[in-house]
Amino acid sequence: MSPFSARTDFARTWNPLARALAERRERGLPLLDLTETNPTRVGLPMPEPAPLAHPDALGYVPEPLGLLSAREAVAAYLAGRGAPVHPEHLVLSASTSEAYGWLFKLLCEPGDNVLVPAPCYPLFEYLARLEGVGLRHYRLPFAQGFGLDVGELAAARDARTRAVLVVNPGNPTGHYLREGELEALGSWCAREGLALVSDEVFSDFAWDEDPGRVATVAGRSLPMPTFGLSGLSKVAGLPGLKLGWMHVGGPDAARREALERLESLADTYLPVNTPVQLSLRPWLAHAPRFQEAVLARVKENRRLLRDARPRHAPWSVVPAEGGWSAVLRIPLEPGEEATCLALLDAGVGVHPGFFYDFTGGAWLVLSLLTHPDVFAQALGPLARVLAASG
Amino acid sequence: MSPFSARTDFARTWNPLARALAERRERGLPLLDLTETNPTRVGLPMPEPAPLAHPDALGYVPEPLGLLSAREAVAAYLAGRGAPVHPEHLVLSASTSEAYGWLFKLLCEPGDNVLVPAPCYPLFEYLARLEGVGLRHYRLPFAQGFGLDVGELAAARDARTRAVLVVNPGNPTGHYLREGELEALGSWCAREGLALVSDEVFSDFAWDEDPGRVATVAGRSLPMPTFGLSGLSKVAGLPGLKLGWMHVGGPDAARREALERLESLADTYLPVNTPVQLSLRPWLAHAPRFQEAVLARVKENRRLLRDARPRHAPWSVVPAEGGWSAVLRIPLEPGEEATCLALLDAGVGVHPGFFYDFTGGAWLVLSLLTHPDVFAQALGPLARVLAASG
Ligand SMILES: Cc1ncc(COP(=O)(O)O)c(C=O)c1O
Ligand SMILES: Cc1ncc(COP(=O)(O)O)c(C=O)c1O
Repeated sequence: MSPFSARTDFARTWNPLARALAERRERGLPLLDLTETNPTRVGLPMPEPAPLAHPDALGYVPEPLGLLSAREAVAAYLAGRGAPVHPEHLVLSASTSEAYGWLFKLLCEPGDNVLVPAPCYPLFEYLARLEGVGLRHYRLPFAQGFGLDVGELAAARDARTRAVLVVNPGNPTGHYLREGELEALGSWCAREGLALVSDEVFSDFAWDEDPGRVATVAGRSLPMPTFGLSGLSKVAGLPGLKLGWMHVGGPDAARREALERLESLADTYLPVNTPVQLSLRPWLAHAPRFQEAVLARVKENRRLLRDARPRHAPWSVVPAEGGWSAVLRIPLEPGEEATCLALLDAGVGVHPGFFYDFTGGAWLVLSLLTHPDVFAQALGPLARVLAASG
Repeated sequence: MSPFSARTDFARTWNPLARALAERRERGLPLLDLTETNPTRVGLPMPEPAPLAHPDALGYVPEPLGLLSAREAVAAYLAGRGAPVHPEHLVLSASTSEAYGWLFKLLCEPGDNVLVPAPCYPLFEYLARLEGVGLRHYRLPFAQGFGLDVGELAAARDARTRAVLVVNPGNPTGHYLREGELEALGSWCAREGLALVSDEVFSDFAWDEDPGRVATVAGRSLPMPTFGLSGLSKVAGLPGLKLGWMHVGGPDAARREALERLESLADTYLPVNTPVQLSLRPWLAHAPRFQEAVLARVKENRRLLRDARPRHAPWSVVPAEGGWSAVLRIPLEPGEEATCLALLDAGVGVHPGFFYDFTGGAWLVLSLLTHPDVFAQALGPLARVLAASG
């Protein structure tokens, strides 16, 4: 009998692409890596670490939900983004990933499940499994621009479903929730007794204005418990600082109960670093500068990508509204894996659609955070390899 | 139907002592608080926060088990304490509490249980429950100085027991595991197929030398998977920095498997702040200065406590070897709660034994970290109230 649990028995098999990539690295061959999404590694502006050395940085005030001054800093940030909220409705955690773990514990008994979108960045499988929680996937139909379809939710749910998870805007699909979609979603969740978890880590990265979009569920009056998630990781490009937040919303009694339970939960771990909490204001003050640089970068790379596509090419750039990624639709033959391997041979790294659970076609995903010099260099081989397929 | 889970349905009732304490606070009455264990609030030496502003502090290298440089810093610290270990056998987490959560996930299916000591600081109830894990208590017999008794372990285990948790030295009992106890424990765990989790957060706080003591399981050759836990929180008095570690030991194959699973687990959360990892060496360099000050403080307070006890008093200070607490044995009448309430009336805050699951008598627990001015002031009322009982 193994001394270790089934919930930590993760598969450790390598697909051919991962193997080819590791081999290429071992041989020391160069790579134009279009999968880099670490914001600290692509030449974007960084603040000075000086604010960390706050005079009280080493004191310890164990406030489970986060220091009030830090929650006020988040509230001020959200207010500046058009979402006025009460600091007492905010909960700090070390990351969005940790917040997911807490929410799965809060909303689910072992054996319950939550609805998660597909395609989507593969974030939830281990997070859910480690809490004994199942995932049921609902499709984001390509025909609707990868938008939310309540019919798909209804088809995916079962008797043990406890919550719906939306990623707004989708990663990597870059579709924003629309007012009408949120309204339909709200009515359905309320009727079915489901909570809503809204991942908004990319919501400050819209490429254009559009008043019909929902940027956040925070501060909105919705008929079910809602949890709006974001954090320094994406908002200010500072994943190493480990500070995320969630806004707790919905009907008053449920919100109160959720906050009380989250307080006990947070008190059990007390995970958020004090120096980072005390310096949250300066980090958030850096966010606009970071976001501006990201938007300029992303738009430049999208322009390069569009310019690199010959007319009548057998591939296309999927329309999107925001985020850090581009999705390419490619010919069904030779397919995602063969195309990725051919690109790797040509020295270009991209992600296959299956990594994100795309279906109904063949797809590639590129990081638009890549340095434009690298991106531009990669586009020649990319166009060449894709022209040869189909 | 509640939208929230049973595992987060924590009791929120107040016992009379908590109520009396809150009332006293509300009325603004002074309190000589002998329950303060926050090392940042009792006038002990603190380092400068300067090391946090490391030039690479804002970069992000997602190493699930922790940056190698940080794990090397911990290995060097342990080696200096007589426990030479490999940095690759160390796992960093945001705190010991988080490490417990990971270990409960690693070792237990929902419904399994672990053996935990009683009396003990009440740390595990929520941590286990949130992972769907049960607790079974084994007694530390007072007659054996609150030492480990394998017979008690055998009586406590059942078919779903997966691990034994020891707190070494006990908190608040201050008994260290002895070589003979560890040997018996090792044989028993190996025979029963149980892992060993050893909480060593106070092990650097021995009051005197004694070669028969086990300071840590790290680096020892034991026949079952072992996990030795500690962190900056107690070792350097820096709980707000959020950095703990565990050493993974035991037979090679099991250790390898445990480390692989912990790597996937850690990769799911990536909880440890980069600036703190990069500055771990200076924080650990502060540890000896902090520990020396704590030991001087604790010894001074114990001396004051012993001096304050009249001959033939109906109470006594329980012998111990280390840690930050003192345990008093008090008369059965009027008992723990009445005594605590009477002390509160006299302006002195202490913890009742039931808070730590003491049985077989009546007990109080005092923090020896208290500032000696406060401690000395509290001893008059303490001796007076205790003299009136029994
Ligand atoms: C949609 C989405 N949410 C959350 C996260 C994780 O964010 P954090 O660093 O706060 O855990 C990611 C990471 O890529 C993500 O893509
Ligand atoms: C025995 C023991 N272990 C662990 C902890 C928690 O330590 P951390 O701050 O690393 O979570 C405590 C806290 O008081 C403790 O008493």
